[in-house]
Amino acid sequence: MELWFTEEHTDNVTFSIKVDRQIYSGQSEFQRIDIFDSLEFGRFLTLDGYMMLTEKDEFIYHEMIVHVPMAVLPEVKKVLVIGGGDGGAVRELVRYPNVEQIDLVEIDRQVIEACKTYLPQTAGKLDDPRVAIHYADGLKFVRSKKDEYDLIIVDSTDPFGPGEGLFTKEFYGNCYKALTENGAMVNQHESPFYPKDAVAMQRAHKRIIDSFPISRVYQAHIPTYPSGHWLFGFASKKYHPIENYDAAAWKALGLKTKYYNDKIHVGAFALPNYVKELLEEME
Amino acid sequence: MELWFTEEHTDNVTFSIKVDRQIYSGQSEFQRIDIFDSLEFGRFLTLDGYMMLTEKDEFIYHEMIVHVPMAVLPEVKKVLVIGGGDGGAVRELVRYPNVEQIDLVEIDRQVIEACKTYLPQTAGKLDDPRVAIHYADGLKFVRSKKDEYDLIIVDSTDPFGPGEGLFTKEFYGNCYKALTENGAMVNQHESPFYPKDAVAMQRAHKRIIDSFPISRVYQAHIPTYPSGHWLFGFASKKYHPIENYDAAAWKALGLKTKYYNDKIHVGAFALPNYVKELLEEME
Repeated sequence: MELWFTEEHTDNVTFSIKVDRQIYSGQSEFQRIDIFDSLEFGRFLTLDGYMMLTEKDEFIYHEMIVHVPMAVLPEVKKVLVIGGGDGGAVRELVRYPNVEQIDLVEIDRQVIEACKTYLPQTAGKLDDPRVAIHYADGLKFVRSKKDEYDLIIVDSTDPFGPGEGLFTKEFYGNCYKALTENGAMVNQHESPFYPKDAVAMQRAHKRIIDSFPISRVYQAHIPTYPSGHWLFGFASKKYHPIENYDAAAWKALGLKTKYYNDKIHVGAFALPNYVKELLEEME
Repeated sequence: MELWFTEEHTDNVTFSIKVDRQIYSGQSEFQRIDIFDSLEFGRFLTLDGYMMLTEKDEFIYHEMIVHVPMAVLPEVKKVLVIGGGDGGAVRELVRYPNVEQIDLVEIDRQVIEACKTYLPQTAGKLDDPRVAIHYADGLKFVRSKKDEYDLIIVDSTDPFGPGEGLFTKEFYGNCYKALTENGAMVNQHESPFYPKDAVAMQRAHKRIIDSFPISRVYQAHIPTYPSGHWLFGFASKKYHPIENYDAAAWKALGLKTKYYNDKIHVGAFALPNYVKELLEEME
């Protein structure tokens, strides 16, 4: 027999992975959660049928969403992670000794429980004593916060379903308010390539630049996401992701990484003309 | 009805494109040639079932294989393109007024004829008076050449089938000999992501560094190639792709591009750690 997982990247493009077996399937209040074993990518997690992570390439996403802001912002003590129930962003954050507290706000308890059981590669650090897990809607959680976090990481699903509120102007405005004066927000920023994704990406960019004085977009090669060309947003009150990037200080930490490095930090902000043009249309 | 083109990226991963209709199918002495129309990618060309180009994203590959070396090398007058029967590399090259002669060596006449008929987007400049088309095996063609070309572009298929000889040590050595003292060779360098592709990529890198004093690898996001993470090799006698890169001179040419720009030029050489490690294993 053959078992294949297929994701529609658009109505006209599919990406399929040969599955060894399904490890977990659940339906939460919010979404369908599935975990599979595969020869090519190891275990992988999907929500409502959309790829969230594979063991083989999750390091790219998680390193890029964490180390880029951590290498720019000085003295990050308190971090808010919104979404990210798989624990991958937390795993990278707890490597920093100066981080004192991480609030992880995940709407879906069942995602965290499934990942703790079946995806220890990412979820293995959720028990770190600095991590507090809040089962809540990120949109509501940040409303009451003010001048509290040095870094907010928006590790959301796509801008439909449970993740929709995490792409609104209200949400970005509240994130701004929740940040300390040196703070920054990083978010998964969708892909520029397929037209439907690009529209969502442009809309998010527009709302972020309306809320933050400094806003830049950077990219990574994530082979299991649609088109493999994925963007992240860096939105900041004070620190610029290149001008205030301290390569020497980050290197001195001695963190070993598989994707991120000092040249990638700068190179990731070098966007193709067609992506720059999509962003500039919104500016 | 639905018609889908499916490519196996590995034994366990497939990528499928909904096809409107097949425009051309031929079997040459060397390979099977197919051209399809699709809603998502426009027309696309496959050889032996492997994706060569789509109208939607071919600009990325062709800009990156041409403009990177052209922005580094001074006074490129004579260029050799090996493979590249689709004409995309030639289209970018003829935009440079200083280029006086382009020898295009394509083993398969039928590829050029099909592209001229059905893919004018890439093949439209093959009739430029500076272009001489040679229907020949690139491996044999360069054997007799010495100190003749300022730039060699190896726009080959994968390292099996008709393209196999274009990944050999003999071939790279002959390219070195065929170049002028300021010359450089750029090649499509496969992908680092899937293990089987990575092995081919490492082997090519090893052979190139054995033949050239300066050898660097750069990358681009090409969504319709396996993993979307594609590499190019820059191998040179004298000029370094970053140290000798003249951004101002290139900008002064006023060429409009959709992917390539001055920041991309530098950023493309910023490789992820896991790619650097694959390359360093060969050095």
